[in-house]
Amino acid sequence: MREALHHGGALDAAIARYGGARADWLDLSTGINPAPPPLPPLDPALWTRLPERALEERARGALRRFTGAGAGAGIALAPGTQSLIALLPHLLPPGPAAVLFPSYEEHGRALAQAGHHVTRFADLGDIPPEARLVTLVSPNNPDGRRFDPASVLALADRLAGQGGLLVLDEAFADAEPGAGLASAAGRPGLLVLDEAFADAEPGASLASAAGRPGLLVLRSFGKFFGLAGLRFGAALGEPALTRRIEARFGPWAVSGPALAIAAAQMEDEAGVAALREGIARRAALTRQALAAAGLAPVGGTALFSLLSVPDAAKLFEGLARRHILTRPFAYRPDWLRLGTVRDEGEAERLKQALRAALAEAGG
Amino acid sequence: MREALHHGGALDAAIARYGGARADWLDLSTGINPAPPPLPPLDPALWTRLPERALEERARGALRRFTGAGAGAGIALAPGTQSLIALLPHLLPPGPAAVLFPSYEEHGRALAQAGHHVTRFADLGDIPPEARLVTLVSPNNPDGRRFDPASVLALADRLAGQGGLLVLDEAFADAEPGAGLASAAGRPGLLVLDEAFADAEPGASLASAAGRPGLLVLRSFGKFFGLAGLRFGAALGEPALTRRIEARFGPWAVSGPALAIAAAQMEDEAGVAALREGIARRAALTRQALAAAGLAPVGGTALFSLLSVPDAAKLFEGLARRHILTRPFAYRPDWLRLGTVRDEGEAERLKQALRAALAEAGG
Repeated sequence: MREALHHGGALDAAIARYGGARADWLDLSTGINPAPPPLPPLDPALWTRLPERALEERARGALRRFTGAGAGAGIALAPGTQSLIALLPHLLPPGPAAVLFPSYEEHGRALAQAGHHVTRFADLGDIPPEARLVTLVSPNNPDGRRFDPASVLALADRLAGQGGLLVLDEAFADAEPGAGLASAAGRPGLLVLDEAFADAEPGASLASAAGRPGLLVLRSFGKFFGLAGLRFGAALGEPALTRRIEARFGPWAVSGPALAIAAAQMEDEAGVAALREGIARRAALTRQALAAAGLAPVGGTALFSLLSVPDAAKLFEGLARRHILTRPFAYRPDWLRLGTVRDEGEAERLKQALRAALAEAGG
Repeated sequence: MREALHHGGALDAAIARYGGARADWLDLSTGINPAPPPLPPLDPALWTRLPERALEERARGALRRFTGAGAGAGIALAPGTQSLIALLPHLLPPGPAAVLFPSYEEHGRALAQAGHHVTRFADLGDIPPEARLVTLVSPNNPDGRRFDPASVLALADRLAGQGGLLVLDEAFADAEPGAGLASAAGRPGLLVLDEAFADAEPGASLASAAGRPGLLVLRSFGKFFGLAGLRFGAALGEPALTRRIEARFGPWAVSGPALAIAAAQMEDEAGVAALREGIARRAALTRQALAAAGLAPVGGTALFSLLSVPDAAKLFEGLARRHILTRPFAYRPDWLRLGTVRDEGEAERLKQALRAALAEAGG
């Protein structure tokens, strides 16, 4: 099922195997917000004309404010973060690279495909000194791990001194309260407060550090906003580097509708605050359902929870037979990742299904 | 104005210089069909879910039928042909490359940026034998030139034998009756009949030859369908090569809405026939307006006409003062390119503006 999962076709594969109509399934296999905001009205010219520079600049400005990136950071727009992950290994000559493990596996795959010699590391201290291209996902997927901002920036500095680059994938940073880093927030200039949500929640993002040598921050739009189909993502970093990245895509790589929708959603501060509240509420509902089934996540973010159970394949299957799709991991037979439910009804359904599936597994 | 033109911001620049509201302007600066078909209804899930593999396959199938590409050809989907033009120079190590001149200048720019040594050629016979990456636009932009299919395929064969590649950019092939190549159509296996329009018009495309070594055919969606903002394009070629191209973009580089709209439009054979009729009618209207002003195009396709006049800058300015935007060429002070008008009203406006501007230029 790897290939199917990889291409977002996990649900089709599951339907083929476990039956049911599409509408019967509760798809918890991703970390995408299941309750996106309504789309703004779209000017028909967005479809017919080439995306205009003014619109690209508007989206860049909205992203800068939304992420708290400084004025000195360059912003390369892309048709989704995934296309940045595929491109980045080609910006440096093949050489020693290092990726966090366990983590989102596309980074290591793309680096290896581009001819880099990829080493895995479990902790920042284990990164081989010869590594020139290092990838870190924070908060990490699937375990929700975060990293000490000072250590992350020190790593970027070291790599910068060696002509290397730290790629910091913050795909899930928007949804993250970042409480785990709150104690580091006092270190001046190191931890960023995401201005859009500074009132309620200190941000876990290092986007405000983007622009310094050696650091490239990837930001995903589709997960937090629940709009994964429109394909919008960005790389924040030194302007010389982000210009190189944009040149690799050529002009107009992001569609007009995607630029307009992303800009409008990021500019809508009240909408963003409501979205964040909704995500937190759904995360709580999901965790309550897990708890009611006797399960405590071993990690996660507001958009997904990671379970460790004796036989995750069995639990996956028990849920799939009840038309609930989750995400297993071939390298960790005890792990199962679940996205968030949309509402109380889905939470109740998840709770009942978990109880039944766990009872079967125990019996 | 180069940079502005380059980024589709020519209209904004013209408004800043010549005044008028956006709606006052008749934008003839591109070769994009000004009368796109209505958009099909969009499933909201296209925005919220990652684009599914089944949808990508549907778009590939529709493109295969629409272009007449054979079953042996691989099809790499991309967020617009422009991103393919930017990527392709990085698929071969830097070396001697050759581009047609005059032609669409992004090919040469992208090759030079990637470190290739770029030579320009005016005729196929002038291509330096050492060139490994050769780019040809057919029908050519801006002069509408076509090339003998047998010579084009022989060139691809020669390059294949040297480990090289011919990139054949057919951005304007869909709108082209291809009458200029009709005499070559009898050569078996060389000239493709575009199946979608085989009844009315023999195609000028070599898409059906895609899949043979040394040939990569680029197809643009936005120009013929008038939907340049949605960003959808494709490269047709040897499967091993198109797989490499897709790997460079990573999964999900084309948005869900773009895939669904492009597939639906290409599948709609009656709609495509109507679109082609409409384009031909508008091209005739445009040429009648030019003729009524005493102008005969020196080249073009159904989507644009190329004029040669003593002082194109003066004519550009005379039209711009009347809020009609056209496309001048820095390297050819006698050339002015005009897209097609939408209807009789625009044709009349163009005719009057041309007459007045030409009278000023003569006076």
